[in-house]
Amino acid sequence: MLKQPDRKYRAFAPIALKDRTWPDAVLTRAPIWLSTDLRDGNQALVEPMDIARKMKMFETLVAIGFKEIEVGFPSASQVEFDFVRKLIEEDRIPDDVTIQVLTQARDHLIERTFEALQGAPRAIVHLYNAVAPIMRRVVLGMDEDQIVELATTHARMFNDCAAKQPATQWTFQYSPEMFSGTDLAFSKRVVDAVTAVWAPTPQRKCIVNLPSTVEHSTPNIFADMIEWMHRHLARRDAIVLSVHPHNDRGTGTAAGEFALMAGADRIEGCLFGNGERTGNLDLVNVALNLYTQGVSPELDFSNIDEIRATVEHCNQLPVHPRHPYVGDLVYTSFSGSHQDAIKKAFSDRKDGDIWDMPYLPIDPKDVGRSYEAVIRVNSQSGKGGIAYLLESEYGLELPRRLQMEFSQAVQRVMDVAGKELTAADLYALFESEYGVRDDNGPQHQVLEEQGEGAAASVQLRADLPWEGEIRRIEGRGNGPIDAFIHALAGATGHAIRVIDYHQHAIGAGADAQAVAYLELRVDEAMTLFGVGIDGNIISASLKAIVSGLSRARARGARSAQSMAESA
Amino acid sequence: MLKQPDRKYRAFAPIALKDRTWPDAVLTRAPIWLSTDLRDGNQALVEPMDIARKMKMFETLVAIGFKEIEVGFPSASQVEFDFVRKLIEEDRIPDDVTIQVLTQARDHLIERTFEALQGAPRAIVHLYNAVAPIMRRVVLGMDEDQIVELATTHARMFNDCAAKQPATQWTFQYSPEMFSGTDLAFSKRVVDAVTAVWAPTPQRKCIVNLPSTVEHSTPNIFADMIEWMHRHLARRDAIVLSVHPHNDRGTGTAAGEFALMAGADRIEGCLFGNGERTGNLDLVNVALNLYTQGVSPELDFSNIDEIRATVEHCNQLPVHPRHPYVGDLVYTSFSGSHQDAIKKAFSDRKDGDIWDMPYLPIDPKDVGRSYEAVIRVNSQSGKGGIAYLLESEYGLELPRRLQMEFSQAVQRVMDVAGKELTAADLYALFESEYGVRDDNGPQHQVLEEQGEGAAASVQLRADLPWEGEIRRIEGRGNGPIDAFIHALAGATGHAIRVIDYHQHAIGAGADAQAVAYLELRVDEAMTLFGVGIDGNIISASLKAIVSGLSRARARGARSAQSMAESA
Repeated sequence: MLKQPDRKYRAFAPIALKDRTWPDAVLTRAPIWLSTDLRDGNQALVEPMDIARKMKMFETLVAIGFKEIEVGFPSASQVEFDFVRKLIEEDRIPDDVTIQVLTQARDHLIERTFEALQGAPRAIVHLYNAVAPIMRRVVLGMDEDQIVELATTHARMFNDCAAKQPATQWTFQYSPEMFSGTDLAFSKRVVDAVTAVWAPTPQRKCIVNLPSTVEHSTPNIFADMIEWMHRHLARRDAIVLSVHPHNDRGTGTAAGEFALMAGADRIEGCLFGNGERTGNLDLVNVALNLYTQGVSPELDFSNIDEIRATVEHCNQLPVHPRHPYVGDLVYTSFSGSHQDAIKKAFSDRKDGDIWDMPYLPIDPKDVGRSYEAVIRVNSQSGKGGIAYLLESEYGLELPRRLQMEFSQAVQRVMDVAGKELTAADLYALFESEYGVRDDNGPQHQVLEEQGEGAAASVQLRADLPWEGEIRRIEGRGNGPIDAFIHALAGATGHAIRVIDYHQHAIGAGADAQAVAYLELRVDEAMTLFGVGIDGNIISASLKAIVSGLSRARARGARSAQSMAESA
Repeated sequence: MLKQPDRKYRAFAPIALKDRTWPDAVLTRAPIWLSTDLRDGNQALVEPMDIARKMKMFETLVAIGFKEIEVGFPSASQVEFDFVRKLIEEDRIPDDVTIQVLTQARDHLIERTFEALQGAPRAIVHLYNAVAPIMRRVVLGMDEDQIVELATTHARMFNDCAAKQPATQWTFQYSPEMFSGTDLAFSKRVVDAVTAVWAPTPQRKCIVNLPSTVEHSTPNIFADMIEWMHRHLARRDAIVLSVHPHNDRGTGTAAGEFALMAGADRIEGCLFGNGERTGNLDLVNVALNLYTQGVSPELDFSNIDEIRATVEHCNQLPVHPRHPYVGDLVYTSFSGSHQDAIKKAFSDRKDGDIWDMPYLPIDPKDVGRSYEAVIRVNSQSGKGGIAYLLESEYGLELPRRLQMEFSQAVQRVMDVAGKELTAADLYALFESEYGVRDDNGPQHQVLEEQGEGAAASVQLRADLPWEGEIRRIEGRGNGPIDAFIHALAGATGHAIRVIDYHQHAIGAGADAQAVAYLELRVDEAMTLFGVGIDGNIISASLKAIVSGLSRARARGARSAQSMAESA
């Protein structure tokens, strides 16, 4: 790092907007949301999504409640083109959802884009070109007039292409690329020129999207820029004003919220802030920030862990344990004084009270989570954690959410025992809580195996210890676990989905065993872990499923009993 | 989630501060920084740091340039007390650094706190008590007068305790706990009462620290609150005004920056935003945001990866791949058009130019990183990534930074070959780049093994293939890898440090092999990976070290050659 960075870096120039109004604005309704997980998010992945992952993401976005979803850049690659075709041809787009696709301002790309959209009932076509000085000078070699010409020529082409496919209900969107690095007067000039070509009306608006392609300034300056555009753009009443923040300075969420306060109607981003470099705006964060202020975001994150699991699967990137609203650690308190305050506030709280809980800005239950007071089994040593002891003494590497779950069981024992627990105490408790020592292991046999990857199919038979007898069950699935779950469902009526899966070896050589930790959703009623240990990898997983199912049944029985007692 | 959240949640009330000045402020100098990694950060860890980790963290903070470091809550636990004693008794605190410790407003805790500080040359003693209505009502059962009484009584006790230890240069700090959830008038009343007791002067200031214990509002409202306090507090010229933001709404960085714009002098936080729940303010983020605006933060993150490795080791929590300035992916571009723009801008750039690079808000070199254009070896398939192919075909799970490193080698080959690479091509390239097929394996023998954990000591002998002969080397360390590194240093003069370590099994049963990926710092001159594969776990690691060292020597030779050619 330089001692005198002013020789290399220049401060972002403030906007002269002394009469700004956004700092007094309060958000009172949800914006129009646009998810770009399948476009801007996807293009920033180490492994871009394949078609199966894209479809899973699309369905998840629809289920959450997104009405506008950018699904790709169909002229850029065949896989993106094919995905758009698949959505349209297989009639996958619900009636209240509109897909959006991106294209650069180039003739053949625009033609290919409209080709990809043939037969779509509705579509937003999103045109962009660079307007920033650095791009004009270094990449495009164009002056301002030429940029305006570039934009309007291709905007006109949109009119022509759309006219040829009149059955589709078209919405046009324009992004002056690197708006955040461009002087406002020129951004306005280009946008006004494009909207003059499109001639939107208040009844048939177009979308103007202002990206902070790179976040260059504190978010108050971005807000000033948006308020300036909001006040100065021509045809404002015929425009849906949209923003597309990135997060290079770690202030993307603030920039997005301020932009809405400054006059924007619509916001683009990704789930949990995936996207180029430091990511796009985190849609979940902004939505739940609204929710905790009493404003419905009109998006549903009631089961945020399941959404996270899907996003982690599709993006092949983790969500951080401290990520707002969703991280493993965000509803956890380690400090005795925090735990005490929360406990007292919970006792004090009455049904219907406004939520006012120390250290918990949202009720974790609203997003399908629970508050967890994590105790340290040996607070003095500084190495007293449950996870540490189980790993160092028994080689068990518990996934973090399982650590949290198991700590509840430990808490109950400690409340009774009133003493510190040893590693051996903990291991015994772990064994009994998860039935690890039990011989709950179904004997299995793979009867048939066909195909590979998405086309794989396995027929599996198992002898299952069940309610005191051994039952022979059979099922088919895309792998042994899937087949076993289907077999279980058929034989016992319990529906199980695997939310998360971890496995590792303990020991080495001939004595090595596999331990499988499966986070399961049982009968759509509860989410919990099952654990299995076995010399055979598949057997360990099947044991884990039986472990989780037994625990779910025991819990169900306990809660039924307590309901009967209180009745 | 509720459809009508306004029945449960209430919007945070705005502050009536129409004449606010902070939105026009521009930061032009570094604030006073306070790291609370060892206190607020540590107490939020699943595994709190042991003494060795605490010391490592303290030394790292000092090396970065922090002058004020909160080192613990010594009255809360023996390990925290012992650490403070160790710092003082072993004279570990540099002359320009002041340690800070926290205490609740309770008599015996304050006594114990001053006891912990005996013999310290300088210290900040940090008093807090809850002032928020929810805490007054539910936890403390006190009215406003009683809270003021609680605070001033214990503030007075600070005066008395300090007078008994006159050799120490004392600074007092007061935090009205949950300031962010308390009405301003009452916060001012308590703070003014405390400073009246302490009677600070402009020459001998006290610190008033305003925490957003929980982030409840958009950051503009927090800024308004700070500006209000800045304008209304008594004895302002005798106060260092400090803030302590948390990040529950994902806007902690913005809140911290705005607080400084609103009049705060000092800011508390943790490296990479560790801390309770969603974390404390991220000090690195705020510091580097300043840096990119041409303002020296007076903190040094020239080798940000090494700082990250230390923090990950101490906290036992990962830093996310999209974390601003430091994540694995933040200097990476995947998109062809981005890569093209960056390439052109780099060619265009002249020495001494102001930094103006598309998609890169900071020069990665300034923090010891490099820009990486990551290419997809097979862009059409959607599953074209290097990592995917090596994992699915060869079972290699490359750590992310190794993926980035190896992708540079792939890029060079693709630039020459001009075609897509198959998995087999990639594996052959991986083998040759990392010498995996070479018989570079030192034969080793553990001669002696004593003790456990931190006290472990191993004497190791190895026969090392080196410059065409086999050399017998010997060394001692706390484990075989450490011993081997010492042996290597003695025999070859190369200093090696292990920055990161990953290992996994490939295959199963008797044929299973271990693959070790070691990120190494060689001769303090370069950071790179070595890879080793062997049936024996230790041998795999030693091979990886030799692999990394050979690559470093080859690179050194190449750069020496190119310097000679250009001379």
